[in-house]
Amino acid sequence: MEKIEPKILKGTRDFLPEDMAKRLLIMGKIRRIFERFGYDAIETPVICPAETILGKYGGEGEKLTYNFRDAGDRWIALPFDLTVPFARLVAANWRDLPMPFKRYQIQRVWRAEKPQKGRLREFYQCDIDIIGTKSLIAEAEIAKIMVEVFKELGFINFIIKVNSRRLLNEILDSYKIPKEQSLEVIRTIDKLDKVGEQAVIEMLEEIGIKKAKDLMKLLKPEKDNKSTFRKVSKFNIKEIDTFFKYCEKFDIPEKYLQFDPSLARGLDYYTGISYEVVSNDFNFGTLCAGGRYDNLCGLFCNEDFSGVGVAFGFERIVLALQEMNELENVGLNSQVLVTLFDKKSINDSLSIYSELIEAGINSEVYFESDKLAKQFKYANKKQIPYVIVCGPDEAKNDEVTIKEMKTGKQETIHRDQMVSHLK
Amino acid sequence: MEKIEPKILKGTRDFLPEDMAKRLLIMGKIRRIFERFGYDAIETPVICPAETILGKYGGEGEKLTYNFRDAGDRWIALPFDLTVPFARLVAANWRDLPMPFKRYQIQRVWRAEKPQKGRLREFYQCDIDIIGTKSLIAEAEIAKIMVEVFKELGFINFIIKVNSRRLLNEILDSYKIPKEQSLEVIRTIDKLDKVGEQAVIEMLEEIGIKKAKDLMKLLKPEKDNKSTFRKVSKFNIKEIDTFFKYCEKFDIPEKYLQFDPSLARGLDYYTGISYEVVSNDFNFGTLCAGGRYDNLCGLFCNEDFSGVGVAFGFERIVLALQEMNELENVGLNSQVLVTLFDKKSINDSLSIYSELIEAGINSEVYFESDKLAKQFKYANKKQIPYVIVCGPDEAKNDEVTIKEMKTGKQETIHRDQMVSHLK
Repeated sequence: MEKIEPKILKGTRDFLPEDMAKRLLIMGKIRRIFERFGYDAIETPVICPAETILGKYGGEGEKLTYNFRDAGDRWIALPFDLTVPFARLVAANWRDLPMPFKRYQIQRVWRAEKPQKGRLREFYQCDIDIIGTKSLIAEAEIAKIMVEVFKELGFINFIIKVNSRRLLNEILDSYKIPKEQSLEVIRTIDKLDKVGEQAVIEMLEEIGIKKAKDLMKLLKPEKDNKSTFRKVSKFNIKEIDTFFKYCEKFDIPEKYLQFDPSLARGLDYYTGISYEVVSNDFNFGTLCAGGRYDNLCGLFCNEDFSGVGVAFGFERIVLALQEMNELENVGLNSQVLVTLFDKKSINDSLSIYSELIEAGINSEVYFESDKLAKQFKYANKKQIPYVIVCGPDEAKNDEVTIKEMKTGKQETIHRDQMVSHLK
Repeated sequence: MEKIEPKILKGTRDFLPEDMAKRLLIMGKIRRIFERFGYDAIETPVICPAETILGKYGGEGEKLTYNFRDAGDRWIALPFDLTVPFARLVAANWRDLPMPFKRYQIQRVWRAEKPQKGRLREFYQCDIDIIGTKSLIAEAEIAKIMVEVFKELGFINFIIKVNSRRLLNEILDSYKIPKEQSLEVIRTIDKLDKVGEQAVIEMLEEIGIKKAKDLMKLLKPEKDNKSTFRKVSKFNIKEIDTFFKYCEKFDIPEKYLQFDPSLARGLDYYTGISYEVVSNDFNFGTLCAGGRYDNLCGLFCNEDFSGVGVAFGFERIVLALQEMNELENVGLNSQVLVTLFDKKSINDSLSIYSELIEAGINSEVYFESDKLAKQFKYANKKQIPYVIVCGPDEAKNDEVTIKEMKTGKQETIHRDQMVSHLK
């Protein structure tokens, strides 16, 4: 029979045990922090009626989204983010949901893009949102969660850049920039990190903005938040000021927060506080971003839900932690391998194994009475830290030999002490 | 703007927080048992080159599988099970994998079927497999894991039915059933649970099997395993006998194992020991099934991997546990709600909340100074067991009032004792 090449699509990935151990560890840490702050999980379907996914971006989205007609001629699409499915779920279920509603969602999403470095067709997102309140406590809580997540994962030099869209709009107004041009201006300012200040000034001048240099000077964050606040103090800074006060009450160290009046976030989706997390230790771009939005469910219903939420870029976080060598010591599950000395010792080995399992120690038994060297090699390949040998000598004395694989140190102890020794 | 109906496809589901709490609990328990036995997680892509999914069943599978051409005219399919993607992953990576290779995989799969009760288009499977060994210890280990999983989840009256495909073939041989007819006969016998003994006998007679009644009498399990072994003892029962001996060494109580010579499992995929788990407490059919197979990767490569594995029917397990009322007390994440007495008490409430979070207590703060009755209602809706009130009186004395929502009992205690009181 002709063999089929065991390939996968570009931009998708197989996760082998070593990858998964790391990914599950990171996901578990993120999940536990979300849960500590009272967020509950939801999950939405992968195969969706296409209009519930593509409504938002209409024709343009079709090219970037996996969509197809199924055998029953239903038009199906796979989600490209978690916000649209969340909005759909809220529109369908808001009467039964507690309000405010705090949810988290960790799922795969798909983009029909040409895969290239850092651009995948299939990847995970981790979203949290609070909807149904306009209180700025919600914004501060989300900031606190971002700090807790990045600290817990081992990030040190990270910063949450924060701005108020209302403030930015007011500043643009003061430069007599007409409302219909403000989105274009904001999108241009948003390129600051990528192209630098001079280029942005030139782009702004090209589209007719006068005093672009002066504007960019005003928007540039100062060396500390206090100075930045002072610089823009003639504008209405009540929103961003209250946000910072709440963050203080949440015990967020100020070093993690940077008031950045130039932060624009391209989407016209955000209406209040917006944030993005970057790290100075490497250049992966934004690790997490989001903000306050209005009218989450506008596509689906007339109910008006305001909320605040952020999406953690799970794949970038994994890459960053790898680069920081934070994942080097993440091992696989087995802590102990019980070897099989010879055919006669099967019963002893199985009984030792059962005892370990009963004691809750992640462990395994080798399936064949291969040469011990081969069994040790298997333990090394799986990074199993301890190997137990129970040959005829040990069996006679009701003993086991425990070998620590890292040091090669061996100890023969009484069977009764095995579990406590390993624990 | 015209609103889009916030609907989902039939046979797919939204999981709200109450559903997800239960599902994550069950998944976590299953996952931890797999890990205790030294299985490591893998994950495979959702969007796959269609030939790597459909190769196995060719044209027939196309109708039952979600498959489509993407914008680049690539033929894509979504996995209908976890075995085919696992085989593909092994074929692509076996040189780097430890052998024997023990993996678990918990992922969604898709079937393009007409949805009906118990038949979904999108659902989870949980698979474990050991490949690269022919040792019967592997079969016994998988049996042990099945017992641990169902016990841990709260099942009591469950049974693992076990048979040896080799034995069944030998018995069919002794009835002079020609090799080319044996698969048809096995598939007929496999209907036993659904249609009953008499119907199977008639169907066997119809396809020309002589002494069908006698055959079915021989295959029927006796009241205990010992009697069943005795009845078929003139055949080669070495495989099934060794399996039972290993199970004993694994401390599997005999009540959970039933030697059932009639167990056929429709697929011609299984070559040795096969099993299925059923429960007498309800009629959901098989909760878990699998067995020994040869040549896992035959579709993809010439390497010959024998293995043994089972798939846990996650969705059926959830339904069964629901029916058994085992999931009634599964709550959401928040344990404590910190209320907001009035605008002046925001700082106190946030500081109390920060203290709880710091202490690792899953909790949340209410975002607005609504009437306390409304805040209590929110706590009830989210099943939050404790509510903290810190009004002006409490604040003055550095105290908090803790209300237990279930009993209505209230206690005012010093702030210093709050965390220890709640823990």
